[in-house]
This record gives sequence, structure tokens and C-alpha cells, in this order.
Amino acid sequence: MAELTDLGRIHAMMFWDQNTMMPPNGAAARADHSATLEVISHTKLIDPEIGRLLDALEPWAADEDPDSDAVRLLAAVRRDHEKAARVPTELAAEMSHADALGQQAWQEARAASDFSLFRDALERHIELRHRYVACFEPAEHPYDILLDDFEPELTTAELKPLFANLRDDLVALVAETAGDDGQDRNNGVFSGPFEVVDQRRAVMDVLEAVGFDADGWRLDPAPHPFAQSLGPSDIRITTRYYLNDFGVAHFSALHEFGHGLYEAGIAPELARSPLGQPVSLGIHESQSRLWENVVGRSRPFCGWVLPMLREHLGPGIPAGVDADAFYRAVNSVQRSLIRVDADETTYNLHIILRFELELAMIEGTLAVDDLPAAWDEGMQRLLGVEVPDAAQGVLQDVHWGAGLFGYFPTYTLGNLIAAQLWTRLQLDLPEIEAELGRGELAPLRDWLREHIHRHGRKFPPRELLERVTGDTLRPEPFLAYLRAKLADAGAV
Amino acid sequence: MAELTDLGRIHAMMFWDQNTMMPPNGAAARADHSATLEVISHTKLIDPEIGRLLDALEPWAADEDPDSDAVRLLAAVRRDHEKAARVPTELAAEMSHADALGQQAWQEARAASDFSLFRDALERHIELRHRYVACFEPAEHPYDILLDDFEPELTTAELKPLFANLRDDLVALVAETAGDDGQDRNNGVFSGPFEVVDQRRAVMDVLEAVGFDADGWRLDPAPHPFAQSLGPSDIRITTRYYLNDFGVAHFSALHEFGHGLYEAGIAPELARSPLGQPVSLGIHESQSRLWENVVGRSRPFCGWVLPMLREHLGPGIPAGVDADAFYRAVNSVQRSLIRVDADETTYNLHIILRFELELAMIEGTLAVDDLPAAWDEGMQRLLGVEVPDAAQGVLQDVHWGAGLFGYFPTYTLGNLIAAQLWTRLQLDLPEIEAELGRGELAPLRDWLREHIHRHGRKFPPRELLERVTGDTLRPEPFLAYLRAKLADAGAV
Repeated sequence: MAELTDLGRIHAMMFWDQNTMMPPNGAAARADHSATLEVISHTKLIDPEIGRLLDALEPWAADEDPDSDAVRLLAAVRRDHEKAARVPTELAAEMSHADALGQQAWQEARAASDFSLFRDALERHIELRHRYVACFEPAEHPYDILLDDFEPELTTAELKPLFANLRDDLVALVAETAGDDGQDRNNGVFSGPFEVVDQRRAVMDVLEAVGFDADGWRLDPAPHPFAQSLGPSDIRITTRYYLNDFGVAHFSALHEFGHGLYEAGIAPELARSPLGQPVSLGIHESQSRLWENVVGRSRPFCGWVLPMLREHLGPGIPAGVDADAFYRAVNSVQRSLIRVDADETTYNLHIILRFELELAMIEGTLAVDDLPAAWDEGMQRLLGVEVPDAAQGVLQDVHWGAGLFGYFPTYTLGNLIAAQLWTRLQLDLPEIEAELGRGELAPLRDWLREHIHRHGRKFPPRELLERVTGDTLRPEPFLAYLRAKLADAGAV
Repeated sequence: MAELTDLGRIHAMMFWDQNTMMPPNGAAARADHSATLEVISHTKLIDPEIGRLLDALEPWAADEDPDSDAVRLLAAVRRDHEKAARVPTELAAEMSHADALGQQAWQEARAASDFSLFRDALERHIELRHRYVACFEPAEHPYDILLDDFEPELTTAELKPLFANLRDDLVALVAETAGDDGQDRNNGVFSGPFEVVDQRRAVMDVLEAVGFDADGWRLDPAPHPFAQSLGPSDIRITTRYYLNDFGVAHFSALHEFGHGLYEAGIAPELARSPLGQPVSLGIHESQSRLWENVVGRSRPFCGWVLPMLREHLGPGIPAGVDADAFYRAVNSVQRSLIRVDADETTYNLHIILRFELELAMIEGTLAVDDLPAAWDEGMQRLLGVEVPDAAQGVLQDVHWGAGLFGYFPTYTLGNLIAAQLWTRLQLDLPEIEAELGRGELAPLRDWLREHIHRHGRKFPPRELLERVTGDTLRPEPFLAYLRAKLADAGAV
């Protein structure tokens, strides 16, 4: 299991390198290396000897504390082993091949803004997902099997009403709060232009103040920001720099910092085991969203960070922008076409649309050829925007190209969970607002490490959430948090 | 075999990352990852099934063209498989553990300039090398077994007289040509100071002019410059920048470019096989030394490159330095303490001393405790310099700390082979001097690819040299080349 964990870390390094350092012509050889590592990992994971060992340990585990690391480790190993063993190697290879081809088709389709160049790859993905689902014990809903890969144990039956309610509330909230279509993003406070070198200095200053440690972390530019952990003390985060929008670098750096801090905070004794990783994408995203939005867009944090940004960005931030204007700016609401550019209020509507569409495709109620029209209709219905072309519409995200179905919902789960955690955290840390205002982040980091990070994958996400908050997954805390902030920021 | 090759490339990536990018605290986890990959590679390589397949293919191979890729591939696989299978896994693990500990002991000893902190680690290395040697069929000399890991098929019996002759000629040549002890390195033409950013621009301009392709190469700073190939089109080279010595960046970049070009030039059809790598350290070093010294320190290249350097380094290069003065400066001879700082003429004496000492340690005629005195005596005898302390003497190189015995000679082999190749190349490319003077490097690159690079590991080094030059390994071409240049550069 330690070896398997090591191979996972090596894969993380290869991903990081490919997306930050690798010269473009290195891609072909890298694909071979990656496939080789994949085969070796898969072969180790499905080794029947693991199943025999797990069975042999069952009587022993029955007498142990069910909350001990060892018993939870056995559960995680069994889950990984059995899931992997159910999928025939040929199907896994077909899927991984289709993922590579699908991304290529998607890239070409997006460049040409032509969905027809992508439809065959998408149809193939759907077909392969059905074959994948058929490898498992029948679930209540085929989509459950896909979801479980990213958010263990969550079901479609739970998710559908949750997202439907959230959708209806958000549509109403956006109608109430959205600014003019012509308004600048973040009210123009980040419009610059700002030199990349100044942006980097500002981002690094903020990161080091919130907990980035140069002895164990790196920050690099990447076209699509991400975080990877190559080890408990080797955290690589990335951001991107737009000359005319410092907000992208600032908030994506805080976002990836949240991901990195989760990985850095896993208990050292779990690090080289299958428990030594984030438990789900939803929980992972709750950490990034908490730093990006709940902290990064809070009134006290905005007040504390503004002078630090000014130091590096100088007069690029208009002189008239005070802490209150800054806070209002970064919480302004605007209908938009592109998910990754969306503000905190509209963001989840982009996700819910994707969830509804991919669910319908898996259910067979939406044909691949009807997807673009359904997309455009959904954008109109949920966000009130007209989609001008496929590149800015149905082709904007790589996920479906890469065969990722059941992945999108975790973004919104992260937002909901972050709000639920924050509700609990405020009870434990009554001074947290004042501390944010002084840039004192250690209490927050410690709370997150103690309650979330250190456990790694020990507790499944539902159990973890209940242990920490005493609550089940629900949208109300997020909606309450958002309404309160929009009111405070004068958007309502 | 393709998988094994992939694993080797992944290891190269990890090495590159560790030495250029990794945050310092990442080292502990990286050691685990590296050990895991090592075990997986070793297990694959010693798989008895490989031996059975090789045996089964023998009758088939007997009827094939002995110079075909397939037949040569079988020979390379047999060599790798049998060498690896002879060494018990426990001994391999002990050696790799001792290598790590030895490097640590060496680091501490060098920092304290205290050989006694290193002697136990060194004695352990010698003992382990004897156990390693005992795993193989007895060779004429135990050192042969060690040498073979770096320079296949070369013997101590060949090397001893070769190096003894070279030593005597070089001692005489240094006596004839060495400048004053107080003279600036490179006559001060590179003393600057030069900003790192200007140095990097100058280095990149030169590299791109000689054949560095940004789509398939990277250049990064590293404390100890090296080159790694992560794939045929993913070549990573490094250099280092000293504010007061641009010569270090310039010549180490040309040196690593030579290594990188070798790896980039291996025939694509061999790339993902055990033949798809450089055949020996000596041949590898012949490529780096050829670019660094034979090309980089030639009169025509110096004349061509000087204006390019001036463009970025400006008045840091004294105005009075013309092409002739520049050429003379980079070929000045000076007795010095440190191998990596040595000029082309004195360099091999540093190597020959190390060879003599490590050979004596392996033979048992030199006790570990007597090494420092033997070192100091040798430096006096060969280079006429007084060693002030162990840090600038016997402790200056990491190699012995890392358990590398039989490695040092390959540096000098590279110099000798580079001169032999150049002798041949001048016959094939009669215009080469004029081309260097115009910065036309394509004919040279093509010649090297055709005669050396594309073959990868197909021909053992001795055979390769004979195929290309019709000659056997000998020092005369190097000595003739060096004497001619020193005369031309006014050093004699």
C-alpha cells in the first residue's frame, strides 16, 4: 500500500511537470510513461493477494476499535481493491484511450466552436460509462456509480432534490442581486493593467501571510490552476496571471492554497498509506472554496489584504477604492457565460446545469445531438444569458471531453460544505472575524487541520461532515451565508 | 522493456525535479518514491522470464544480421538482465542505503573540512564494492567490474598505461604552459560582475544558435549542472550562474547541451527500448566535452560567439578584449585545486589522481586513513599545488561519498574520445572551421547524430569508436589537439 501511494505521488509529479514545466514536444513520451505507471499501479491494486489478506484480517478487525486507523485503512483498501478489480483491464484501457482521444476532439471542437467535431467522442464516453456502470452491483441509479468515484457514497436520489432546491433559490437570488451586463468584473478594482512580476509578488506576499511555507511549497504559473501534493512537505500550487484581471491570480491562488493546505495537513502517520489523501472531491473543494470565498471574500479579510496588494500593485488599484468598496467589488454579482469566470453567487447555477445535462445523458433522456440546444436553453433558464457560440457554451469545459461524468457536482458540494464547516467553526472560534481582519490565520488553519485535514481518507465524506458539524449535507447554511454577505456588501 | 525504459525516464524526471524544483522539505518523501520505483524496476529486470525469453530467442538471433537492431537489443537486454540478477536484492539495498548515508557523511565532512567524519562511510563503500565485485565471474582485476558499470568492456589493464602515459605528457605540458598562480581565471574576461538575468539571456541566445529547441528542451539553474532526457523531445539541461564568472554558465551550458544533443539524437525507433540511451559515460562525456571545449574553446567559435555575448553582457567584458584575446583567455592554463574549476589542460590530471587513488583503495594498497596524505602528495606531484585543507582537497567531490568508484575515469575518456572523433570529423567536414566561425552548426550536429547519437546503446563503446574513427582508444589525438591549440593561443 505504501508502494501504491508512492506511485500515486509520482503520478502527481508527472501531472504537475506536464502542466508547468514540460516542453510541448514532451507530450508523446509522457503519455507512454503515464500509461506504464497506470498499468503497474492497477496490477498491484487488483492483486488477488490483497483480497485474501483483507479476508484474513476481517476477524481481527471485528475486535478492534471501529474508529482506529487500522480498521479504517482496511475499509479504504477494500474499497479501492474491489472497485478496481471489478473493471476488466481491457475496459479500463479503452476508457483511458477514449479519454485521451476525447480531450483531443474537444480541443479541436472548441477551437472551431463546432460541437459536431466532438459529438462522436461524447457518445463514445457515454457508451463506455454504461459499460463501466455494468461492472458493479446494480445501484439505485446508474449515475450513482459514477458519482461514487468522486464523492464516495453520495447518491443521485440525494443530489437531485438538493440541487433542485438550491437552483430555485439561486435563480431568485441572482434575479435580485445581479448587476448590469456591461459592468466590469469585480467593479473594475482588479482591471490594472498589472505586470505579471508585480502580480506574483502580491500573490506570494498574501500566500506567505496565510500559511504558504517556501521550504515545503511551490507556486508556479499554469494555464488551468491546480494543486498537487508530491508528499506531505512538497505541495505544488499554481495560478495564472491576466494583465487586466488580478482577481484571477489572487483568488485562484487562495483557492489552490486551500487545496494544498488540506494535503499538507494530513496526519504524518497516514501519509504513506491509502488513508493519506483527501477523502473526496467535494471535501477537497470545500477547503479551496473556504479560502477563496468564505475567507478571501469576507469583509475583514478584504480589509486586511487590500494594503498588501496596494504595496505591489500600486496605482493599478484605483485610489478611490477603500476597504468597503473593495469588499463590495469582489462580491458583486453578474450573469455570465463562463463557469470559471463566474462569481460566488452565480457559480453554482453553472454547475447545476451541467449536472442536469449529464444526468439526462446517462439516463438516456437527452441525446448527444440535443445537448447544445439543451445547454443554450438551460443557460437562458437558469442565468438569463444568450449563448453566442458553442465555444462559450457547451464546449467551454474539458471535463466531458476527458470522460469525467459525476465530477461537476463536487464543485457545488464544496461550496455547500464550506458554508456548513464555517457555521460550525464560528462557534468554536468566536473571534474568527477579528482574527481574519488582523491576518491571524493560525487558529483557522489549526481548526481545519484538527477537524478535516489530519483525517485524510479515514472517514467517508458523509461521516466526516456529520462528525464535524453534527449536520447532514444541505443547502441552507450556504444560502444563509450568501444572503448575509450580499446584504452586507450592498448587493441586495 | 518499453516499460522498464519508461520507468527509467520517470526516474530521470524525479532526479531533474529534485535538483531544480523540489522544495527542500520534499526530500524525505522523494526518497521513498525513488526507492519504490527502484524496487519495481529491479524486480522487472531480474524476472527469470526474461532469461528464458533470451535463451529461446538465441537460435533465431544466430541467423539474423548480427548488426541488426534486434540482435543488438537482445545483447543489451542480456547484459542488463544478467548484471542485475547477479546482485542479491539485499546487497543492492545495502549499497543504495550506504550511498545515501555516505553522501550525508561527505556533506558534513566537507562542511567541517574534516576527513575523519567521512572515513567510516568511505571504508563501508569499499567493503560493499568488494562484495559487489564478488557477485560476478572473477575478472582480471576487481576494478574491471566497477568500471564496466560506467564504461562497458573497458579494463583496468588498458586504462592504467593509457592514463600513465597521458599523465606524464600532461605534467610536462602544464609545466610548459601554466600561467602565474595569481592570474585571473580566463584572464579576467568573464569576471563581470554580470547579473543572472543577463547571463541567462546570453546563454539562451548561444544555445538557441547552436541547436537548443524551446519546443523540446528546457534550461534551468542547478547548483551542480547536469542534463537529463525525459523523452526524445523532452531534454532538460541546467547551468549555474556566478556573478563574477560568466565562464561557468557559458561553458557548463555548452557542456550540458552536448549531453542533451546526444540524448535528443537517438533514433526514434530505439527510443523506448534499452538501446535508446547513451552507451557509456565516456561516450556521453565525449559529446559534452566536444561542445564545451573542442567547439566552445576553438578560435572560430570564440570569434563568432563574442559579439553575441557582448550584446547581453555589455561592458562587463572589457572593451579591449578582441576575438584573439578572448580565445587566448579561455584557453589559458592554470594550476588549481578544484577539479570542476580546472581548465582543459590541467583537468585530466585531477581525474588521473582520483583514478590512481581509488584503484589503490580497491586493490587494498592504500588504506582509507592514508587517503588524505596520498591526495595531498598527488596534487603536489601532478599539479604542483599545496592543498590547504580537506574541503579543497580530498573532500571536494561528491562521487566517493555516493559510492561511485570506476566513474571518474570516464571524464578523461570523454576528452580523449572527443579528440578522436574530431580528428575523424575534420576529414568528413573539411569546412568545419569556417562553419564554426559563421555559427553554422547544422553540419556538425548532423555528423554527430549520424555517427554517434542515433545508435544509442546499439554498439558497445569500443566498437562504436572503431566504427566511427577506425581507431582504438588512445591519448595521442587529444595531446596533439591540445598542443596545437595551446600553441595557436600563445600559451606555449
